[in-house]
Amino acid sequence: MSTSHRIRSFEVHDIRFPTSRDRLGSDAVHPDPDYSMAYVTIRTDGTPELEGHGFTFTIGRGNELCVAGIHALEPLLLGKPVEAFFADMGSFWRHVTGDDQLRWLGPDKGVIHLATCAVVNAMWDMYARSEGLPLWRLLLGMSPEALADCVDWRYLSDALSRDGAVDILERAREGREAREQELARDGYPGYTMAAAWLGFDDEQVRELVREAVADGWGAFKMKVGADPEADRRRAALIREEIGPGRALMMDANQRWGVSEAIDYMGRLAGFDPLFIEEPTSPDDILGHASIAKAIAPILVATGEHVPNMVIFKQFFQAGGLNVCQYDPCRVGGVNEMLGILLLAARFGIPVCPHGGGAGLDELAQHLCAFDYIAVSGDLDGRVLEYVGHLHEHFRDPVTVRHGRFRLPERPGFSSALRPEAVEMYRFPEGDAWRGQ
Amino acid sequence: MSTSHRIRSFEVHDIRFPTSRDRLGSDAVHPDPDYSMAYVTIRTDGTPELEGHGFTFTIGRGNELCVAGIHALEPLLLGKPVEAFFADMGSFWRHVTGDDQLRWLGPDKGVIHLATCAVVNAMWDMYARSEGLPLWRLLLGMSPEALADCVDWRYLSDALSRDGAVDILERAREGREAREQELARDGYPGYTMAAAWLGFDDEQVRELVREAVADGWGAFKMKVGADPEADRRRAALIREEIGPGRALMMDANQRWGVSEAIDYMGRLAGFDPLFIEEPTSPDDILGHASIAKAIAPILVATGEHVPNMVIFKQFFQAGGLNVCQYDPCRVGGVNEMLGILLLAARFGIPVCPHGGGAGLDELAQHLCAFDYIAVSGDLDGRVLEYVGHLHEHFRDPVTVRHGRFRLPERPGFSSALRPEAVEMYRFPEGDAWRGQ
Repeated sequence: MSTSHRIRSFEVHDIRFPTSRDRLGSDAVHPDPDYSMAYVTIRTDGTPELEGHGFTFTIGRGNELCVAGIHALEPLLLGKPVEAFFADMGSFWRHVTGDDQLRWLGPDKGVIHLATCAVVNAMWDMYARSEGLPLWRLLLGMSPEALADCVDWRYLSDALSRDGAVDILERAREGREAREQELARDGYPGYTMAAAWLGFDDEQVRELVREAVADGWGAFKMKVGADPEADRRRAALIREEIGPGRALMMDANQRWGVSEAIDYMGRLAGFDPLFIEEPTSPDDILGHASIAKAIAPILVATGEHVPNMVIFKQFFQAGGLNVCQYDPCRVGGVNEMLGILLLAARFGIPVCPHGGGAGLDELAQHLCAFDYIAVSGDLDGRVLEYVGHLHEHFRDPVTVRHGRFRLPERPGFSSALRPEAVEMYRFPEGDAWRGQ
Repeated sequence: MSTSHRIRSFEVHDIRFPTSRDRLGSDAVHPDPDYSMAYVTIRTDGTPELEGHGFTFTIGRGNELCVAGIHALEPLLLGKPVEAFFADMGSFWRHVTGDDQLRWLGPDKGVIHLATCAVVNAMWDMYARSEGLPLWRLLLGMSPEALADCVDWRYLSDALSRDGAVDILERAREGREAREQELARDGYPGYTMAAAWLGFDDEQVRELVREAVADGWGAFKMKVGADPEADRRRAALIREEIGPGRALMMDANQRWGVSEAIDYMGRLAGFDPLFIEEPTSPDDILGHASIAKAIAPILVATGEHVPNMVIFKQFFQAGGLNVCQYDPCRVGGVNEMLGILLLAARFGIPVCPHGGGAGLDELAQHLCAFDYIAVSGDLDGRVLEYVGHLHEHFRDPVTVRHGRFRLPERPGFSSALRPEAVEMYRFPEGDAWRGQ
């Protein structure tokens, strides 16, 4: 960048996809989601102008609150020079999350944090674009110290200090090139959710699972929790189709209390599930720990509703999860994702981000690649959830071949929507919603 | 009520008091709050019309998000008959908190939960008004079973079941009348915060403490955490004024990490603080437990930023707090407050709600009276925080004499603002804000 750039505008849209019309995404707690995004484009002055795109993900009603949340953050950034932020993304993050009045609304949770995520990721997108690099490569180019300084360690240091994080990154230097080549050649492993939404009938499920096996997928997830007998029938059907060698995961979407979860999973253990996802309230760290202890060797996975790294820290400390599924649109953007990856590495927990939704895979693929190459150095137990819809609305959609994500190579965070999609799905003015 | 009543309107206002002009409420993390409320009046049709008032509390910017959150909940209630809700307030609560799309924004935390609190409390206010009773008396008139059924036990039952809650309430029947007479005679004990905001200078503090001692206050709280030397000087000053017999509490407003909190309180232990409030992140249950263990016999108090009863349950289970300070405008209204009171009784933890703010004492006094008379039966270690401003804007303000809260006797939840206050402090149109 030859000239100085100041932030001059936020363009924010309430984007909603009418997914509930096909019951895509249906589960035991969310029967009719309309996958939605509060989508922001941040632009600078200067020559050439810079732009960055970010979004948070919701499932419909209430998306307007996230749009309003992004607007509430706007005054913190308008007129500020971006070069100073890019030189110290840790200070940038504390600036956005530290407003002394807005933090009362969280802190670091709920609508204001969802909005924060959109804004923080938009600035990382802008940073990566300005360097002409995909986000994962931008991160690879930063020193261990600079990466660690992106994270606010104040509330984490009883588990991992800034210097401990630097050590983890230093130790992972060895083998980085080989791992990058491996991902470039083979892609990052995925698993598929497309087959087993609760709203589908048995024959639809059987057909979709067969197609997915033929496509090369090695891991499958089904929704459970609404009806024990139906769950047993469907688990038997899927296990029959995938055979003993492929993984079957289960997802209860917070349906149960602690003892109920333990009982229910006892009755599904015969189908050899790899993990149960969200067995109870996402706030119940200690409850998850009790469940994990009781149902081992079935693993406990959770995270898509966990709002920040302080709570993930405790899930790690308490043994509340065996698989970390942070959501790239719920935690406070790239900075918090880095904190979570480093904490997970400290505790030896595999990270399998929440994918699907709208654009979650587009974001998560960058952090997964970075995690393998530069943090964990490990693919064991790591898979990125793949759901095959809505990718067509992104300028740089994920590419999946034979059940593996190809490395993204275009500059930025893959977070930009196509202008036609913005036009079509703006709520309530877009063509997709008019006359509804 | 002779006729059936359906909810016909929500009137919602963004109310802000310009408290930052006097640095009222200043602390180590929130230097310039403008105490604010997203205020809702819910009205029915029928003869006579019923109305209920509720609000959430924020400290300024972002209050508009809570206003929008209340509007997002409006479609869940419009047109619904209130008698069915009043007959089963537990189902009402699950209806308001269970919208399958809105819950993605929480669940049960952040802006949508602050808004939920306003709506739930407005409906309890309407219920109490319709019965011609102050809220605490309405609750006293409900059976143990009906009270327990107000609470959603799904995620609590590993600590306390619905039947266990009924037992607690049954056991507390003995002595209820005597305790009610005692409160009617003596009032409910308070403590004062008015003396020691960080923005005040030493001489202001000394004068205010002297006045408060003369007024009969027995417990005092000071803000700490911004500057160790200034804190030692101020603690010495206050301890000198109040003598050894009165309680000195300290409040760090989340300023520290875990080990920092332990070190810092080691240096203030000589002033014999009763408790340290919010020593670290309000999300860090396990961190609080480590601090509590290390600094005993100094107690750990927290809760004003804890969003729901599932998280309080874990604070109790883990020993993360010795004093429970739920905020009557942050948790999900009366239903969650009942759950918290019952859990606290199960674990033997005193409850001292977060007071002050705008209208927090007006609400909390009802739950405090109910807790003493019908749940805990105990005043040991229980005090309600009192801050002496903004009460004049309420139709039925708290009455405090000699450091004790008089029992409220007017029908409802003391949650209605005076119409002149709404007019004056509406943001940004009210006279208090025009020309700013």
